Amino acid sequence: MIIVLKPDATKKQILHIEQKIKELGLKPMLSAGKERTIIGVIGEEDKARLQPFEAFPGVESVVPIQKPYKFVSREFKKENSIIKLAPGVEIGGQKFIVMAGPCTVENRDRLVNIANLVKKSGAKVLRGGAFKPRTSPYSFQGLKDKGMKFLYEAKKMTGLPIITELMDPRDLPLFLKYADIIQIGARNMQNFELLKEVGKTRKPVLLKRGMASTIKDFLLSAEYIVSEGNHNIILCERGIRTFEDATRFTLDISAVPVIKKLSHLPVVIDPSHCSGIWDYVAPLSKAAVAVGADGLLIEVHDDPEKAMCDGPQALKPAKFEILMQELKSIAKAIGRTI
Amino acid sequence: MIIVLKPDATKKQILHIEQKIKELGLKPMLSAGKERTIIGVIGEEDKARLQPFEAFPGVESVVPIQKPYKFVSREFKKENSIIKLAPGVEIGGQKFIVMAGPCTVENRDRLVNIANLVKKSGAKVLRGGAFKPRTSPYSFQGLKDKGMKFLYEAKKMTGLPIITELMDPRDLPLFLKYADIIQIGARNMQNFELLKEVGKTRKPVLLKRGMASTIKDFLLSAEYIVSEGNHNIILCERGIRTFEDATRFTLDISAVPVIKKLSHLPVVIDPSHCSGIWDYVAPLSKAAVAVGADGLLIEVHDDPEKAMCDGPQALKPAKFEILMQELKSIAKAIGRTI
Amino acid sequence: MIIVLKPDATKKQILHIEQKIKELGLKPMLSAGKERTIIGVIGEEDKARLQPFEAFPGVESVVPIQKPYKFVSREFKKENSIIKLAPGVEIGGQKFIVMAGPCTVENRDRLVNIANLVKKSGAKVLRGGAFKPRTSPYSFQGLKDKGMKFLYEAKKMTGLPIITELMDPRDLPLFLKYADIIQIGARNMQNFELLKEVGKTRKPVLLKRGMASTIKDFLLSAEYIVSEGNHNIILCERGIRTFEDATRFTLDISAVPVIKKLSHLPVVIDPSHCSGIWDYVAPLSKAAVAVGADGLLIEVHDDPEKAMCDGPQALKPAKFEILMQELKSIAKAIGRTI
Amino acid sequence: MIIVLKPDATKKQILHIEQKIKELGLKPMLSAGKERTIIGVIGEEDKARLQPFEAFPGVESVVPIQKPYKFVSREFKKENSIIKLAPGVEIGGQKFIVMAGPCTVENRDRLVNIANLVKKSGAKVLRGGAFKPRTSPYSFQGLKDKGMKFLYEAKKMTGLPIITELMDPRDLPLFLKYADIIQIGARNMQNFELLKEVGKTRKPVLLKRGMASTIKDFLLSAEYIVSEGNHNIILCERGIRTFEDATRFTLDISAVPVIKKLSHLPVVIDPSHCSGIWDYVAPLSKAAVAVGADGLLIEVHDDPEKAMCDGPQALKPAKFEILMQELKSIAKAIGRTI
Repeated sequence: MIIVLKPDATKKQILHIEQKIKELGLKPMLSAGKERTIIGVIGEEDKARLQPFEAFPGVESVVPIQKPYKFVSREFKKENSIIKLAPGVEIGGQKFIVMAGPCTVENRDRLVNIANLVKKSGAKVLRGGAFKPRTSPYSFQGLKDKGMKFLYEAKKMTGLPIITELMDPRDLPLFLKYADIIQIGARNMQNFELLKEVGKTRKPVLLKRGMASTIKDFLLSAEYIVSEGNHNIILCERGIRTFEDATRFTLDISAVPVIKKLSHLPVVIDPSHCSGIWDYVAPLSKAAVAVGADGLLIEVHDDPEKAMCDGPQALKPAKFEILMQELKSIAKAIGRTI
Repeated sequence: MIIVLKPDATKKQILHIEQKIKELGLKPMLSAGKERTIIGVIGEEDKARLQPFEAFPGVESVVPIQKPYKFVSREFKKENSIIKLAPGVEIGGQKFIVMAGPCTVENRDRLVNIANLVKKSGAKVLRGGAFKPRTSPYSFQGLKDKGMKFLYEAKKMTGLPIITELMDPRDLPLFLKYADIIQIGARNMQNFELLKEVGKTRKPVLLKRGMASTIKDFLLSAEYIVSEGNHNIILCERGIRTFEDATRFTLDISAVPVIKKLSHLPVVIDPSHCSGIWDYVAPLSKAAVAVGADGLLIEVHDDPEKAMCDGPQALKPAKFEILMQELKSIAKAIGRTI
Repeated sequence: MIIVLKPDATKKQILHIEQKIKELGLKPMLSAGKERTIIGVIGEEDKARLQPFEAFPGVESVVPIQKPYKFVSREFKKENSIIKLAPGVEIGGQKFIVMAGPCTVENRDRLVNIANLVKKSGAKVLRGGAFKPRTSPYSFQGLKDKGMKFLYEAKKMTGLPIITELMDPRDLPLFLKYADIIQIGARNMQNFELLKEVGKTRKPVLLKRGMASTIKDFLLSAEYIVSEGNHNIILCERGIRTFEDATRFTLDISAVPVIKKLSHLPVVIDPSHCSGIWDYVAPLSKAAVAVGADGLLIEVHDDPEKAMCDGPQALKPAKFEILMQELKSIAKAIGRTI
Repeated sequence: MIIVLKPDATKKQILHIEQKIKELGLKPMLSAGKERTIIGVIGEEDKARLQPFEAFPGVESVVPIQKPYKFVSREFKKENSIIKLAPGVEIGGQKFIVMAGPCTVENRDRLVNIANLVKKSGAKVLRGGAFKPRTSPYSFQGLKDKGMKFLYEAKKMTGLPIITELMDPRDLPLFLKYADIIQIGARNMQNFELLKEVGKTRKPVLLKRGMASTIKDFLLSAEYIVSEGNHNIILCERGIRTFEDATRFTLDISAVPVIKKLSHLPVVIDPSHCSGIWDYVAPLSKAAVAVGADGLLIEVHDDPEKAMCDGPQALKPAKFEILMQELKSIAKAIGRTI
């Protein structure tokens, strides 16, 4: 940590700051520049963060040097983490994983039908929401417990592991029973109580980036989960909020190489939610493979006109099949398989 | 709702859409323009929203006309809502209400001391966090139950009603027992399960705007609470995320007149969290009074250097006292009292 | 400047960096922390900036400490700058200055009529565009030279100094002849050739903040003008681009205290362009006075329905008159006059 | 255009609006909904835009239906535009075009050396700035006329056509003499006078998206150029400004499929400026090919440590050579060649 002093900081103020640094068991290192004096704080930055140095008289600003997260960082673990999702299905390695399915579980037959279709095209995980976070209280909120059971049946019938979203810590037992991967949605990325709860389990967790979260915030939320003991985390970029309204959110594709540099965790992209329009799902999916993501989360629906949620962004199975072929070619070009 | 068709939409596609509109019990109204045909949907837009018309062949875009929220809208209730916070303390009327106190409850004596000081200066509500949402799992997470009890004791000793943040639906009974106003933080603005839970109570709820939430999203989250029966809602603008990094968040001061036009609910501003720097709290507070907000939520700490949370943005009691005098002058100039 | 090294930076890399620092006539100061080594660069940061240290092997990041601007900074000049706009009219001192008038000059009679009305209400400067930057090539682009002459006539008839926007360096002679204040619009805030040209004159320049410009960028653009010798600069906050679409832009009201801290230049607010809706002009103007701005730039039109540009955001003269009365009360409450 | 009325709009107000619509030679079409009445305006929307209907009493909002741009739209021209850059070099067709070179021209020998290296790797155009738009007036501003001559010499020696940035209309003759493609930078995307000037020539223009510009604004700026007669336009996505600071700007990769849908013009991506860090240039370039862009603009420097501008984002020639091989594989996978 670097403490930058105001040009007119007094000797007394500087002494006071140095003393506080020493009280924390750290070492101050003064450096009188031409315009400003700065104090380097040598030692564990976590300790220094406990003291609000910005509030001290004479201080202009505080510059952190060390990363605020640990276990999720590339410095903590150099090699890529490979997360086991189900027998024979893992993510983060050479294989690129596509998770596909409807936005929301509507009924058993439709779900099983879609599951069979996406499996045939090469998807390795079935997605589908039973509990739905909807902006409006008047929108369809999901089939809840019944939806969970339909997912479980679809899994038994197709062999595809399932991923579905958890919104309330009180529903966790149900998820531990039925789900293979617990999804934490963008709107709950900083629902810290929920993060702690899933951190106490050992289930794989797919954590979606909040729509206003920096990559640093995102990794800190993952750190919440790991700090409770659960290392099975998949990060999901799903678009951030910007001024551009041609798409629902702006896919921050650079987040993939940035996260790969900072963290060892696998990263997937959700092209359906970030764009909000099925037309854009194919080009963004191809970009996801090329940029180095480890997987995709794609919405597929056999009859988007009748979808109870997010119909406009769902691919039809035939389009999904074509896309999968294209993705396989690109994956091959960069030395991966799907 | 207006459905805008693609320039090359076929007759068959148009007929199909018209038929669907009729099936919903609504009336389609075709209007063939020079470049595009549009279909007006006459009737309750909520019904039309159930059908994902964007997913229909031939459709270019769908333009909503009616507001997606009801009970919180100015159209539903013309006059300003006045929320009773405690005997003799209400918000939304002629009186401008200042809520002040430390970011987090640290110990009983400090809390009571600060409470007495802010009360003397004219604050009408004591703020203080017992459960703290922190970006990092390694930051102080609050005194929790013990903090709640300290707040309750401070209330009994000073007579100030208390506002404190709820993060987990499982803690609600504790809040019903001790708190006067339940705060829902920005990071939980779209934690819909939590919104529903506080909606089932009749406690006043102060709902903070999410840092990436449009005003429409914000009002829809308030609608979640009202739709469960709780009409006692105070909206709080606390800054949105933008590219500007001179302040922690960007205070969207225009949100006050915009919300006042769209909704009957009272609106307050939190100048401490949006700026992150105590220096800016006074000018932003004055702007809040002038722009027509109904109150303020200000952090005050008697020793910011030792604050366990957000010290850099806390005002010292002496500065708070001066600010209150200035706010009273401005309030008077626009016909209100503090 | 602080150079933060990668955890695995080699001794050879460090030596190489230290040597480069010395070659620039600066002093490196090594500080080996627990996780990372950092190198403080002692001396003029401008020199250090000439070398792209981020591109050196072993470097993780570079943290600037000194401000990149000089003459516009509060450190360079402690007291507020007061800019003389015309005989008896200055900005940046105790007096709050309102500049008002139509978005664009439409014809002589209308302009003179509006000028007389705003003058009567207390405006001290007449605004009006002759050259208009329009997003679409098919929108009205202004009366150009003829508009300039109408402005000049309105000035002679009312005694109000005039402010109008310059878009092309080739039009500068015309502006030097007719205008009292040259406005540089938001879209040209980083048109550096234009900044240099107005920097060579001694005319007061009102520089609008770019819609995607940080305050640091904004001050650097002002520095472009000062570095050519023209110190007569007024900064104008006019809204930044964010995801919120209830207003055209988001007024960054915090920019006023932030700029006041960093710079000695006067700051005004343009509530008409940032909101885009006349309804919001009055509350935002009141906030501008309370937050400590030095003036306002308000659009007034006697017949907004017929306005050739931005009619929806123009105040009618009667509303402007009422607003001016309210602004005077608030100004008085904070010890200023209008 | 749809005019949405306020719930309490009076008959008189509605009649007044209808009359105005008719006066413009357009046809009003009333549609009384459950909550609101709307008026469809049948006819050319350009005409309707001349009247500020938002300013009319009784009007709540105005919803445009037609696109505000024409010649650049996909509706105006269905097939992709192919722009001829030099004999045997065109963009927008099956071939993917890489433009590479240093950020700024530093001296003749270095430029020729880099030009030869990028040509050998497969680049088809040489990039390099002679006039540099720099945020700070104290940064290197380019070699100007001398730089232009060096570019011309490099062109003669390598056969590569050159692209370089124009900032001032007064420099246009120099560009017409030496440049093959005129670049308009992000900061000048709404410098409308400059757009008009290059519109009057027939030189290919590469227009960079402004960092706060929506895609609609972007296309309108291109329309400025076309409306003066120059149809040879290449659009360049180079990152927009968002809250994320891990990269200098946020590459809006979705802009490629969005623009491809709305316009017939070729689209390229600049991965160097949007990320600001050379590490991210390779993954983003691969994504650019996969997403369907027509080309790339990449910074290459043989000694980034000594680069006078943007060294941290430049690729070394050896890395560029490897990248080009990877891009060729991906291009092949999607049926294109480089």
